[in-house]
Amino acid sequence: MPEFFNVLPPAEALQVLLDRLETRPALPATEVPIDEALGRVTAQETHAPEDLPSFPRSAMDGYSLRAVDTFGASEGLPAYFNIVGEVPMGRQAEVSVSTGDAADAYTGGMLADGADAVIMVENTQRVDAKTIEVVRPVAVGENVVQPGEDIKRGEVILPEGHYLRPQDLGGLTAMGITDLSVAAKPRVAILSLGDEVVSPDTAPAEGQIRDINTYTIAALVEQAGGIPLPLGIVRDDIEEQTAAAIRGLEMADALVFSAGSSVSSRDMTAQIIGNLGQPGVLIHGLAIRPGKPTVIGLVNGKPAFGLPGNPVSAMVVFDLVVRPTLYHLSGCANPPQPTTVAATLSQDIASTSGREDFVPVRLKGEDGHRTAQPVFGKSNLIYTLIRSDGLIRVPLDRGGLYAGEDVLVRLY
Amino acid sequence: MPEFFNVLPPAEALQVLLDRLETRPALPATEVPIDEALGRVTAQETHAPEDLPSFPRSAMDGYSLRAVDTFGASEGLPAYFNIVGEVPMGRQAEVSVSTGDAADAYTGGMLADGADAVIMVENTQRVDAKTIEVVRPVAVGENVVQPGEDIKRGEVILPEGHYLRPQDLGGLTAMGITDLSVAAKPRVAILSLGDEVVSPDTAPAEGQIRDINTYTIAALVEQAGGIPLPLGIVRDDIEEQTAAAIRGLEMADALVFSAGSSVSSRDMTAQIIGNLGQPGVLIHGLAIRPGKPTVIGLVNGKPAFGLPGNPVSAMVVFDLVVRPTLYHLSGCANPPQPTTVAATLSQDIASTSGREDFVPVRLKGEDGHRTAQPVFGKSNLIYTLIRSDGLIRVPLDRGGLYAGEDVLVRLY
Repeated sequence: MPEFFNVLPPAEALQVLLDRLETRPALPATEVPIDEALGRVTAQETHAPEDLPSFPRSAMDGYSLRAVDTFGASEGLPAYFNIVGEVPMGRQAEVSVSTGDAADAYTGGMLADGADAVIMVENTQRVDAKTIEVVRPVAVGENVVQPGEDIKRGEVILPEGHYLRPQDLGGLTAMGITDLSVAAKPRVAILSLGDEVVSPDTAPAEGQIRDINTYTIAALVEQAGGIPLPLGIVRDDIEEQTAAAIRGLEMADALVFSAGSSVSSRDMTAQIIGNLGQPGVLIHGLAIRPGKPTVIGLVNGKPAFGLPGNPVSAMVVFDLVVRPTLYHLSGCANPPQPTTVAATLSQDIASTSGREDFVPVRLKGEDGHRTAQPVFGKSNLIYTLIRSDGLIRVPLDRGGLYAGEDVLVRLY
Repeated sequence: MPEFFNVLPPAEALQVLLDRLETRPALPATEVPIDEALGRVTAQETHAPEDLPSFPRSAMDGYSLRAVDTFGASEGLPAYFNIVGEVPMGRQAEVSVSTGDAADAYTGGMLADGADAVIMVENTQRVDAKTIEVVRPVAVGENVVQPGEDIKRGEVILPEGHYLRPQDLGGLTAMGITDLSVAAKPRVAILSLGDEVVSPDTAPAEGQIRDINTYTIAALVEQAGGIPLPLGIVRDDIEEQTAAAIRGLEMADALVFSAGSSVSSRDMTAQIIGNLGQPGVLIHGLAIRPGKPTVIGLVNGKPAFGLPGNPVSAMVVFDLVVRPTLYHLSGCANPPQPTTVAATLSQDIASTSGREDFVPVRLKGEDGHRTAQPVFGKSNLIYTLIRSDGLIRVPLDRGGLYAGEDVLVRLY
């Protein structure tokens, strides 16, 4: 379509930017204690300093013994064992087993010296205080966690660029690692532009509106693991906006303009990004709706984004372009995936081939019987986003979606 | 199956607990500034103090005019308008339009007095400095955001118990609301039990193992919007564990035991929860694998959980039972959904009807062509969780899943 002829789909536009960014990670490394590491991105590969476990552990409650002594044991022909002691939890084995011996073993406890398997308590019967009968054979190593079975000394615990999840932290403390090197959080300067915009603590006069996007964008930055640096509202004056943008780029690793909503004010964003440094504007316009009037630039190695002023557009473009860029800056190889749910579309959505459309939907019903009801609000209404649960995407090559189609809803 | 005969599936067990909890929210309300409100849960219903927008705004760049003057306009028979001025962005209208007049209008700007519609600049042509021709008619209200169209004074902005997303914060600042009442974060005391467990900064002797679950569970609590209060490691002594549990319940809104792994130590957890207060143990055992040896209790109105010591089990049970309880405590009606992706199972998984099985899987490939490869590691290996991407669930009524089946993977 002519309107979208000279603009790129968001994924391609993002790639243009990422290809121009320096080798990642662009952000410096910093050391954090383990209890502040959740959601951070590792800045180096970590290797296991030792075997885990460091000793043969029982995987069951039962008796440690020599497997060979159980061979042939069955309900009809049990094997008998002398209980020679126990290995208490958390203690080094101080008993050893020879032929026909067994020692009490607890899940997670060490095997007795000389033992090479554990028989589950369920496969034994107490005969008397010192004797058990075993009614099935066990193989060597059965019910045993071998030294290094969880992880071996020298193996990679976590690669560089790994987004840290709860279990990763547990895996590190298991190795005695309580501090680690992670990428600094990306700082994102946020500028809200427009003569009509006033601060939320101000009573707007007629013709004015309170700032919405600074707060929405700051929260999106926070969700993406960044540090928002809101620089306030700047009126539609190219000198003032340029000065604020320069200040933002000095303080931050990336810059986000929430553009004024008029065409002239949007054009100013591109002009400013172009003037700030090299290479300047990379992308002017995306093949999406809403979100077309987006500017993507790169200024002396730092990304600069001119997001549309409409809240819905700003959120869509943040998700498709800004968020992945922030993860890229930290060198993250496995960023968290968006949360999606499957649903059935409740009514037709018309679109235009050649662009991606994003339509807010409200969800009804439970898993397996969920319907998505399009909310055809104007994209300049913030309550369109508040009263809906997520977005569906009409692909570039589709002229629309039909009622009854299965769709994937990106929750927000 | 006999083994699972007397235990409940996790959803039913959770319901038993929630039914016994006091009317929610159990947590007190607290006031926070908007920039700390992301992910918090509203403690009261909020109403719009005014109309948004408070004045008729143009939704397009163009001209505000009287719609009636455009009726019948076409390419062949344009209507002509005198430009009588402009309404600058952020300013009250100081021009008014009469029959045949139009005023420059900018997206987000106010309409001129007397105007009831906006014609897009694309549907006009400049004739001279003071005249435009209009080539199509507009309806009354077209391209105009009416006062109160986003939200009307008195309407509910956000209900009580609402999980706050980025756009919700924008909707609040749009109304001039910069502080709001939210539920306090649930504080969760975490006790790591077991004679074999030592602190991560200690070199474990033979038979000992460093604490994993305190850190994993603390991170899970943090992810669920809670405040973890790790109380350290307590050895397998009923007096010491009881004292620690009492201290935990005093400090926190909920208590999580990471149980020792031996049967005797697990049984101790139930005994302690039973001794602490009324009603005590509600559930002893879940119809899941891993995770069966779970204890769920309620002590003087505060939930207490005995999670299995195995890392995989602890994570599964946290997800199914502890996380929803924490959201319940804050009165949250729309907790964040788990992140899932669709995949094709790469090999058969055997299970047992009558219980839910959770199997870690590794994902390969991209959207639409993703396969899930089961990782049949022992559930006592933390690296099983680290080397996998998520869990698949084998439902209660299925004896297994087949290679080639479509599955939903819960990412972690």
